[in-house]
Amino acid sequence: MDEKSYMKLFMEPESVALIGVSRGTGDGSFNILENMMNYGYSGKIYPVNPKTTEILGKQVYKNVKDIEGDVDLAVISTPRDAVLDAVRDCADADIKAIIVVTQGFADGDARGRRLQENLVEIARENELRILGPNTMGVLNAAKNFSTSFIPFKMSKSPIGLISQSGLFFPGFPGLGFGKGVDVGNACDVDCEDVLEYFGEDPDIKLIFVHIEGVENGKRFLEISKRVTAKKPVIALKSGRSERGVKAVASHTGSLAGKDEIYDAAFRQAGIIRVYDVDELQEISKALLNFPSMVGKKIAGIVYPGAAGVMLSDACEEFGLEIAELSEETVKHIKPLFPDWMRIENPVDIWIAGMNHGVKKVFEVVLDAVLSDKNVDAVICVVFPPDTQGYSEEIFDLSDVIEKESSRNKPIAIWMFGKEQERFSGKLEGQKNVAAFSSLRNAAKALSVLSRSRKYNSGVGHKGAPIKSEDRV
Amino acid sequence: MDEKSYMKLFMEPESVALIGVSRGTGDGSFNILENMMNYGYSGKIYPVNPKTTEILGKQVYKNVKDIEGDVDLAVISTPRDAVLDAVRDCADADIKAIIVVTQGFADGDARGRRLQENLVEIARENELRILGPNTMGVLNAAKNFSTSFIPFKMSKSPIGLISQSGLFFPGFPGLGFGKGVDVGNACDVDCEDVLEYFGEDPDIKLIFVHIEGVENGKRFLEISKRVTAKKPVIALKSGRSERGVKAVASHTGSLAGKDEIYDAAFRQAGIIRVYDVDELQEISKALLNFPSMVGKKIAGIVYPGAAGVMLSDACEEFGLEIAELSEETVKHIKPLFPDWMRIENPVDIWIAGMNHGVKKVFEVVLDAVLSDKNVDAVICVVFPPDTQGYSEEIFDLSDVIEKESSRNKPIAIWMFGKEQERFSGKLEGQKNVAAFSSLRNAAKALSVLSRSRKYNSGVGHKGAPIKSEDRV
Repeated sequence: MDEKSYMKLFMEPESVALIGVSRGTGDGSFNILENMMNYGYSGKIYPVNPKTTEILGKQVYKNVKDIEGDVDLAVISTPRDAVLDAVRDCADADIKAIIVVTQGFADGDARGRRLQENLVEIARENELRILGPNTMGVLNAAKNFSTSFIPFKMSKSPIGLISQSGLFFPGFPGLGFGKGVDVGNACDVDCEDVLEYFGEDPDIKLIFVHIEGVENGKRFLEISKRVTAKKPVIALKSGRSERGVKAVASHTGSLAGKDEIYDAAFRQAGIIRVYDVDELQEISKALLNFPSMVGKKIAGIVYPGAAGVMLSDACEEFGLEIAELSEETVKHIKPLFPDWMRIENPVDIWIAGMNHGVKKVFEVVLDAVLSDKNVDAVICVVFPPDTQGYSEEIFDLSDVIEKESSRNKPIAIWMFGKEQERFSGKLEGQKNVAAFSSLRNAAKALSVLSRSRKYNSGVGHKGAPIKSEDRV
Repeated sequence: MDEKSYMKLFMEPESVALIGVSRGTGDGSFNILENMMNYGYSGKIYPVNPKTTEILGKQVYKNVKDIEGDVDLAVISTPRDAVLDAVRDCADADIKAIIVVTQGFADGDARGRRLQENLVEIARENELRILGPNTMGVLNAAKNFSTSFIPFKMSKSPIGLISQSGLFFPGFPGLGFGKGVDVGNACDVDCEDVLEYFGEDPDIKLIFVHIEGVENGKRFLEISKRVTAKKPVIALKSGRSERGVKAVASHTGSLAGKDEIYDAAFRQAGIIRVYDVDELQEISKALLNFPSMVGKKIAGIVYPGAAGVMLSDACEEFGLEIAELSEETVKHIKPLFPDWMRIENPVDIWIAGMNHGVKKVFEVVLDAVLSDKNVDAVICVVFPPDTQGYSEEIFDLSDVIEKESSRNKPIAIWMFGKEQERFSGKLEGQKNVAAFSSLRNAAKALSVLSRSRKYNSGVGHKGAPIKSEDRV
């Protein structure tokens, strides 16, 4: 069986055996069977537990070998001393894909490390593949399928998650992820296997990889290069520090290795590196919501002038340029401004807005800069509507966005103040628009976008904006 | 009249003349009089406008000289060509403090720059002080007083804001600010005047300065040093970049100057420098909510192990240390963990929580590390409650916090996932607790705190936590 077919057994099995599933159900019971049923998985589920005959109305088998039908995938969550026997039983039952949820292997003591080696031996002997141990397993929102023992809401997002931790399953920011694999201790199925699979998966438009350590650097590089040629890959490498390296060893038993080596490898492989989860959120938002950015010249529309200064700082910091507005643009918007005011980019619309209405001025200026050949993207700074004389209708940009001239330029918005979260939803329901939590984050995200133009960005949702109902 | 008395006229006047106040009221009218009345200012207000006799039920004067009573402060918002005459009228009426809201002076064209010079001449001749031009003026929540033409909610926060822009008036993050001055073009009253005033003001526990350019570096340094000896000063310097410098010139007419010079000056003056608004929010939160940090040794309590790795990375990045837990601590918490698991810092409570209940384990471990002499502060990583088997009661830490042993150590929390905002309120209602938007931000804020121990932090609210009702 080739790599891809194995991954398919993990990601979209038609039948699953749950070995060691708990009898306890309800809040705080971490019952995989209960979660799986609640998610609405439509495949066959065979719970296995020698101590009972029925859980949640499902027939329970004493042993996985007693199951009559074919089993695509087994999920083992027994205590660790029972895991090897369970895997052998799976081998006997000709099951080719196994998730070992149980902890206490390479992430534990010396005995745990030996047990993990034994796991690998059994896998090799029987030509079966093991995901884990020490994992929450997989999630596939397209199939309403997850092996997570922590219940959470799924999201039909075009982001694929590859992680060495369950941390990101309930805690993924922003859009959430549509498919995900926690490789855990990665005794067999590893980050690269999943990377390759997501690289081929048409549902996945952007891949996020959380890495603590890579065993086979050459293979990682090869596969990454192939995948980043097709879609953006964002990586968060933890275990960067001396102490972090130590913590990795006790977390997944991986070798974190020197950070500089990873840095070079990411660059070589065309992987976008982030250092924190909020950075991931902002950059993936830009890559998925925005069209491609042809150059790196920015027009700024700011409400108070001070924001223009901050915007210029942020653009320069992240390698973007402040566009020289064309004479035509300046001429077109000039009548809105007082005579004494020189029109410069970033355009400060404070006083024009006070004189002619904020919405009108904002729309005229936005339309003008979007139509300007010298401009590749726009960053707008807007006041929070709850503290301002203007109403929420300023967030309806449809008149401007629908114009032919404006079609294919990103509009990044930083709304300062309190209500960022509430209004970013409204803003991002619109094509080519995304809201960011700070000016520097907006600039950073556009900077990554401008360096990622090969991806024909924004195709995440077939050119349509990512709507709030797609959110977790 | 000395510096302080002048500032008092600006900040807590007993009577105010509003020259050039608009007849238009309601949404989008930017009417200073209307705002001032809505804020609940209890002093006398004298609107001045030759074109009408009454606005919002108040008698309107043709000229400021017609007002019978004493006037502490005049606020001028006429068109720019009427400003000089209005200031002369104020001088004739013996008004010593004047705010010029009007734009189009050094922030505008050559004529504007000349007009600003004239303003300064009149001020010097008549021994009066001018704030602005190009300013939203002042805000003093303690007196329900503001000259802002944009209406917004006030906050009784212990933060003093000094800004070269109105940007921060409606857009101040987090706690909001309790008193603030927009120095605008700073033709006369400048950043240093306000800094000195806030330095002496017992209501102000932390000062935030937004600077575009400083005219008199020596004076800035002298005053800053005096103030930072007493209370923390956080600065955001914009106009860092080449383009930003240019934008500063057209915004307030200031010279932004070389960024390295500011950097050195801030260090020498003991000013904490931030680069974005979110950084300001997180650091001021730590300085105001937390007690002093005696050393820089951190205990981590993390829910999944991967977060421990990220926590270690973040601490090392910002110069904090991961504490060696005492034998006593390890012995005390050991029984909660499986035999194969080595207790290390950061403490991964995932499996212990699954076996013994998250709330119980979290409390026992938190209590143990807080009591540990090797630990100066705690960073906790917690799951978002909406996706998790546990209930919101995990956020009630009162049993642990009330113990004598735990009294004076900061507890920083990063709750990942969706519901950060909603739960940070609950968490921060508790003493010594603050929630941060990322692990790196938590570490950065604690790092600043550990270097600010001279301030006896957390006195912002007399040792009590900052409650959500104090928020904007």
